[in-house]
Amino acid sequence: MTPHNKLFIPGPVEVSENTWAAFSRPMIGHRGEDFKNLYRAIHPGLQTLFGTRQPVFLSTSSAWGVMEASIRNLADRGVLCCMCGAFSDKWFDVAKRCGKNAEPLQVDWGKHIDHKAVERHLATGKFDTVTLIHNETSTGVMNPLEEICRVLAKYPDVALVVDTVSSFSAVNIEMDALGIDVMLTGAQKALALPPGFSLFAVSGKAFARAEKIPNRGFYFDFLEFKKEQANWMTPSTPSIAHIHALQFKLAEIFEEGLEARFARHARTNALVHDWVRTAGFDFFAEEGFRSKTLTCVKNNKGIDVLEFARKLRDKHHLVIDPGYGKIRGQTFRLSNMGDETEETVSHLLTCLDDVL
Amino acid sequence: MTPHNKLFIPGPVEVSENTWAAFSRPMIGHRGEDFKNLYRAIHPGLQTLFGTRQPVFLSTSSAWGVMEASIRNLADRGVLCCMCGAFSDKWFDVAKRCGKNAEPLQVDWGKHIDHKAVERHLATGKFDTVTLIHNETSTGVMNPLEEICRVLAKYPDVALVVDTVSSFSAVNIEMDALGIDVMLTGAQKALALPPGFSLFAVSGKAFARAEKIPNRGFYFDFLEFKKEQANWMTPSTPSIAHIHALQFKLAEIFEEGLEARFARHARTNALVHDWVRTAGFDFFAEEGFRSKTLTCVKNNKGIDVLEFARKLRDKHHLVIDPGYGKIRGQTFRLSNMGDETEETVSHLLTCLDDVL
Repeated sequence: MTPHNKLFIPGPVEVSENTWAAFSRPMIGHRGEDFKNLYRAIHPGLQTLFGTRQPVFLSTSSAWGVMEASIRNLADRGVLCCMCGAFSDKWFDVAKRCGKNAEPLQVDWGKHIDHKAVERHLATGKFDTVTLIHNETSTGVMNPLEEICRVLAKYPDVALVVDTVSSFSAVNIEMDALGIDVMLTGAQKALALPPGFSLFAVSGKAFARAEKIPNRGFYFDFLEFKKEQANWMTPSTPSIAHIHALQFKLAEIFEEGLEARFARHARTNALVHDWVRTAGFDFFAEEGFRSKTLTCVKNNKGIDVLEFARKLRDKHHLVIDPGYGKIRGQTFRLSNMGDETEETVSHLLTCLDDVL
Repeated sequence: MTPHNKLFIPGPVEVSENTWAAFSRPMIGHRGEDFKNLYRAIHPGLQTLFGTRQPVFLSTSSAWGVMEASIRNLADRGVLCCMCGAFSDKWFDVAKRCGKNAEPLQVDWGKHIDHKAVERHLATGKFDTVTLIHNETSTGVMNPLEEICRVLAKYPDVALVVDTVSSFSAVNIEMDALGIDVMLTGAQKALALPPGFSLFAVSGKAFARAEKIPNRGFYFDFLEFKKEQANWMTPSTPSIAHIHALQFKLAEIFEEGLEARFARHARTNALVHDWVRTAGFDFFAEEGFRSKTLTCVKNNKGIDVLEFARKLRDKHHLVIDPGYGKIRGQTFRLSNMGDETEETVSHLLTCLDDVL
């Protein structure tokens, strides 16, 4: 039997045996009481994780579905796309493909989005929607969400969409307190569920905006999600297995405790950072703006990154990412999100040393 | 422990232990060779099931995502929506929500779509896209696909979108031979996979049309699917678990053999039909146009359908559907799709008699 290769890539991450067991619970219908009870049962925990009193929605799609949905539901006058890496850059392209006026606020990969630049753009009055990726997974940059949200608070006509795909549940993000209008995440990152599912919540302001935006369609219509959630249902047939797994994961998260969970991610992240320095590597992300869930390592030593990753896989059955998009080979990425502990991350680091 | 309630609703249907095992295989990354090999391995079988030489795409969404996508990718001048039940009727609404000109070709629920009516509508020249549900799951009507396709063949400028959600792999549908432009299905019907995933294929004519249609977006852009499939990838992070389960299911399907699979569905369907007659019920769908995968039973005996279904569940742990939408209680639906056999369907029918 082929040995299992454990994932330390920044998504999908490793899924635990207990999560797989919940994922494979016998199927139920999605229009009956069993499903309603399931949705009702997980909802308070989801609201706590989102830091919101708004309904939290279950989207049977990857996060890009909800990212595009945010554009289709909210953008009218113009979208300001904060761009600092592969995924935030791509959001600009997606906005244009939806037929919307979009403009870039672009910084070099590895840099963060500066709140003062956001303010300068918003002052033009051209924008009604801002897209921001909290944790740019391709570069390992964590953007200064609070500072940016303070700028947005001065522009009540502008809706802020925040992708928390690789930071959600690993660091504290309080949607309502920050004034976020759409907050979204995927299943396969810090939640350590299998890919193919997303979660999101929408502010009252964003619902009111959506009512005035034509051609929102059906599958990703925020108002349709809201109407169905009021009855503990989803607009379309949901991926029930993902919701079963989410139910298990929420219980696990609250058993650990949120503060303990945040602290665990901070500790395992610090271990990786120590290894980067000791091994003589640099960080790709600038200091002060580094993710707590993954580390993008700059290949300043000029190693053969693909060969390094291959050796790690062949010898130790651990999988890391050799860099995304245009920085493939010039970087590599180490994830500490999900269920990883000081023990498992230390094991990874020992194995990295072994094959370096 | 609560006993498991086995699903005989027309989707989601019961998922086998072996399918769950494949669904829970350890996670792999979706941008590496493991994933490409997985997609490459399942593709010939998918093409055979679709009866197409076109690429078959993996959509991380329920079927409604692809149904809406077909509208966004193809409709320009006008959409003719063939409407004969809850799902086909809804497609008309979805087309309008996408901002398209759509017109209904409506028949009473329980009736089929007549090819001559399609021809009369197409002769007006107002339409460039037709939506058709092959097997209208809400009413148990199977539409005469071949006859309708023969009409479409006279209108080369019109694209035909066919939803085969509840007939795919249970009856023979050859996309290329029939001249279907988009053929789509969901995971949780005759394929007996967990819900949350869809498959579709697109004709050369439809790809050429999509190139000229603006605002297709990204998540459901047919051309994006085509570009990524050429490299055995998907546009967004896919639900890998569903693809693992699909790989297992395809092996099972081809081990049984397609003809044997079609014949098994025909036999189990005939068993249900015999029961309907013997028990003194009528069919909701008109004769000659009845589905081979589910039966919509008319409640001509005036039983309490909800109570009937409740008793069956409480006493025998079998779940049937008490009718969909406006015909809830006036009908009930019995599924014979997926892994069901003469033995399992006979058991259902015996239990139905017991609680009647």
